[in-house]
Amino acid sequence: MPDSAELLFAGHIIDLTVEQWGSNEREIIGHPGAVAIVPIDRDGNVVLVRQLREATRRRLLELPAGGLKPGEEPLPCGRRELAEETGLVGGLWTHATTFWTTPGFCRELMWLYYAEGVEPGERWTEPDPDEELEVVRWPLAEVAARLGEIEDLKTLAGLLLYLRDRSGPTGSVPAR
Amino acid sequence: MPDSAELLFAGHIIDLTVEQWGSNEREIIGHPGAVAIVPIDRDGNVVLVRQLREATRRRLLELPAGGLKPGEEPLPCGRRELAEETGLVGGLWTHATTFWTTPGFCRELMWLYYAEGVEPGERWTEPDPDEELEVVRWPLAEVAARLGEIEDLKTLAGLLLYLRDRSGPTGSVPAR
Repeated sequence: MPDSAELLFAGHIIDLTVEQWGSNEREIIGHPGAVAIVPIDRDGNVVLVRQLREATRRRLLELPAGGLKPGEEPLPCGRRELAEETGLVGGLWTHATTFWTTPGFCRELMWLYYAEGVEPGERWTEPDPDEELEVVRWPLAEVAARLGEIEDLKTLAGLLLYLRDRSGPTGSVPAR
Repeated sequence: MPDSAELLFAGHIIDLTVEQWGSNEREIIGHPGAVAIVPIDRDGNVVLVRQLREATRRRLLELPAGGLKPGEEPLPCGRRELAEETGLVGGLWTHATTFWTTPGFCRELMWLYYAEGVEPGERWTEPDPDEELEVVRWPLAEVAARLGEIEDLKTLAGLLLYLRDRSGPTGSVPAR
């Protein structure tokens, strides 16, 4: 644990602390944690979202994902975020893994779930007004060949892990 | 591009800006960019490093990696970081991909390289005094079964991608 810590900024999502660890000063971003989902719909598509990521000045294609709200557990957070961003509900949820996204300077821990067999809900909760999302569907059989289009790290890892966990011994995705 | 931006903190590695995009206020972490390496030594081991990541309060096992210095290109940065952290030099370097690590709030772009056939250099550049690194070697044939030990996102993605790109049609890693 640090010898001392000074909170310099507390924002809506992140905060920034400078911590002293022995003779080392560390700039550390606090984050509530997040959930990302590999959603597979009943037609055998992976469902992705494309949105403006202001930090990058670009629209990026990503797994549905979002931050934990205060007191929220990862699984309900994942179901809420998936419904908000894509309108998809239900399905069989599996916790795939949990990782630190950028441990060199940030405390964000991210839970990754597979959500297989999701389907459109009766009532689609409106997206947050500050989210302009485009929903993109890729047939599972095309994912391996299209990974080069992915520019987001969690999406690359999530899709690679899903393909690995759900592929047959020949490396192909099972027919549906 | 943002309508306005206010720099609130400029640190040694990261900075923090609050940007106004229309009616949305975004908290954005600036970062110089970074390089991560999947190094394979001449004995067929993947070489990883374990170090304290103060942000997480834990020692994590990761790919060698580090930030770009001012004016530094990704490939020389990767060779420098690998030598500093592991003493390994030479080898055949391949640019695997480039991704945003956490585009929801951070500008960090990361270049991923494979460095195959690396070997100990005659003179190991001393690690930075603030880095306490343990070098860990995993035989390539064990990597697939040990991915569950990885808690760092870039390391998970880098190893999965390497296994995929270098595996034979049965999904196994080629014998060396």
